[in-house]
Amino acid sequence: MKKILEYISGIKPVDYSKDAAAIDHLNNLTKPPGSLGRLEELAIGFIRASNAVPPKLDKKIIFIMAGDHGVARERVSAFPAEVTPQMVFNFLSGGAAINVLARHADIQTVVVDMGVNADLSGRDGLVDKKVGMGTKNIAEEPAMTEEELERAVFAGISLAEEAAKNGCHIIGTGDMGIANTTPSTAIYCALLGLKPEDISGPGTGLDEKGIKHKAEVVKKALALHAPYGSPMDVLAKLGGFEIAGLTGLILGAAKNNIPVVVDGFISSAAAMVAVKSSPAVLQRIFWAHLSNERGHKKVLAEMGINPILDLNLRLGEGTGAALAIWIIEGAIKVYNEMATFKKAGVSTAL
Amino acid sequence: MKKILEYISGIKPVDYSKDAAAIDHLNNLTKPPGSLGRLEELAIGFIRASNAVPPKLDKKIIFIMAGDHGVARERVSAFPAEVTPQMVFNFLSGGAAINVLARHADIQTVVVDMGVNADLSGRDGLVDKKVGMGTKNIAEEPAMTEEELERAVFAGISLAEEAAKNGCHIIGTGDMGIANTTPSTAIYCALLGLKPEDISGPGTGLDEKGIKHKAEVVKKALALHAPYGSPMDVLAKLGGFEIAGLTGLILGAAKNNIPVVVDGFISSAAAMVAVKSSPAVLQRIFWAHLSNERGHKKVLAEMGINPILDLNLRLGEGTGAALAIWIIEGAIKVYNEMATFKKAGVSTAL
Repeated sequence: MKKILEYISGIKPVDYSKDAAAIDHLNNLTKPPGSLGRLEELAIGFIRASNAVPPKLDKKIIFIMAGDHGVARERVSAFPAEVTPQMVFNFLSGGAAINVLARHADIQTVVVDMGVNADLSGRDGLVDKKVGMGTKNIAEEPAMTEEELERAVFAGISLAEEAAKNGCHIIGTGDMGIANTTPSTAIYCALLGLKPEDISGPGTGLDEKGIKHKAEVVKKALALHAPYGSPMDVLAKLGGFEIAGLTGLILGAAKNNIPVVVDGFISSAAAMVAVKSSPAVLQRIFWAHLSNERGHKKVLAEMGINPILDLNLRLGEGTGAALAIWIIEGAIKVYNEMATFKKAGVSTAL
Repeated sequence: MKKILEYISGIKPVDYSKDAAAIDHLNNLTKPPGSLGRLEELAIGFIRASNAVPPKLDKKIIFIMAGDHGVARERVSAFPAEVTPQMVFNFLSGGAAINVLARHADIQTVVVDMGVNADLSGRDGLVDKKVGMGTKNIAEEPAMTEEELERAVFAGISLAEEAAKNGCHIIGTGDMGIANTTPSTAIYCALLGLKPEDISGPGTGLDEKGIKHKAEVVKKALALHAPYGSPMDVLAKLGGFEIAGLTGLILGAAKNNIPVVVDGFISSAAAMVAVKSSPAVLQRIFWAHLSNERGHKKVLAEMGINPILDLNLRLGEGTGAALAIWIIEGAIKVYNEMATFKKAGVSTAL
């Protein structure tokens, strides 16, 4: 735990000093000032987060972190737990939604075994950061030990550090783990003081009865592990290995001035732990989309966050992040490639 | 007028018979059913609009239609009218926002002179469909004659017909014309019974006083030309050459089963004329985005339309259409490229 807090203390607030020149540049481009709305905001946000002018966005990576969850035994998912490793194979062979959308947006994908309950060693293309064969059942005991938490978080940090060394300009978060909306819901409740019945949703497809049961499981887990100390304590008691890995990835990206695009319900839970651990992380994050998973709207509203897209996605894997990264890239191209009024010989406003 | 109505009568309702098989296919892909939300809806909508399974989306074109407006003399725009031809040159040399975003989305752009108030003949890369040197001032007389209307609408139709012959799979609409939010506002009021003061907005950047004046100009024009007959009568009296061209383009796309992606405030006005002329057009249209131009939200709500993106854009040119076409292309790739549960060996729901 101490090692994590030490790392976090090295994350510096963003530098706003380049804002004025960047806004000035945008206002000189051949369009009415501000008429590209969100795209202009994204360009400014990216400059802040990456601390570079002109902004550069060529090398894009989405990390898809996979892990299993002991709480799946409580029947909180519409799909069986064996789907976690099956989907890892699907990612590796390029047939999943995230593969399709990442190819569409020209983004590299990296699949990481954070704690899948299957022996995946030696699989071609899979990054092995396995902390264990899935977490413990949070309805009965803490998800992981402090030592496991540290390993999981630093696995994510090390991937971000490596990406930084390789010149990565943006990182997207993706997740796979049957039952992982349950620990995510528990994390939101513990961090933001929300009620399980208010933010529990269908996940992969529970009916209303299933959702009610899931909320009960979250309630039981929350009571069992209270009181909670730091956000990292919440993560160890209620989290998942892939969630902790994503928290580390986000912390590592922030430390290295790499803008990070947070996907949906699961990724946002990981991001919330990072933000609550270090507020400086918030200015490095782009929130990709409003998930159709019931609780996401409440959670984002609670944090005052207005995500980029709203397409009723609720798949995870980084699918929303892939689309949002492409939109951000468009904003950066607008900044870098549009002609100025002067250069194009276009008259300015009356 | 008769010739236009004859053409419109040839537009057939979409065929829903492929829906069931398409939904079945989507439900067999490795994801919880419906979890890709809007992307799945877009794939189904595209199949309907193009009447083809599997859907194909390679050849993409955005038509940027430009025209000038006599009503610019009423000082309804923050920019001088000379900006229309200047921006046409900017489009042709690739420095405008639409050039950047169309390149980003790998979409061809075609720039069309529908009625710019400048001699642009012989300009490399410009499609010459000039109907006149700008419309008349609608605050004083009808925008165009019936003969001019027919030429403008058929210019758009002919471009869609040609695109169909060349194997185009999707068409986006774009506009350029200083002052063109004013005729668009007038068209909405005449077609939907809305009030000028409720939907007049800043356009390229009017202040509140300017917006009030613009609403007064629209009010005056509306009263001057009442009563209105068909939607085409509205278009002739209140429209613009680029707006009429876009109406024709949309009609021609619908006739040829080419899905058409309608950009923002101006393009939606052109689309509204097409839809009110032939309800079958509606099922061929994708509404790209909610414009930040004040009236757009009311107009779309009036029609029960939920656009794909909401990024506070208010530039026109087809910028929102470029982004939305890329999202639709992603939906088509999901449909065509994702693995099925069976092929990937992934278990289905419990």
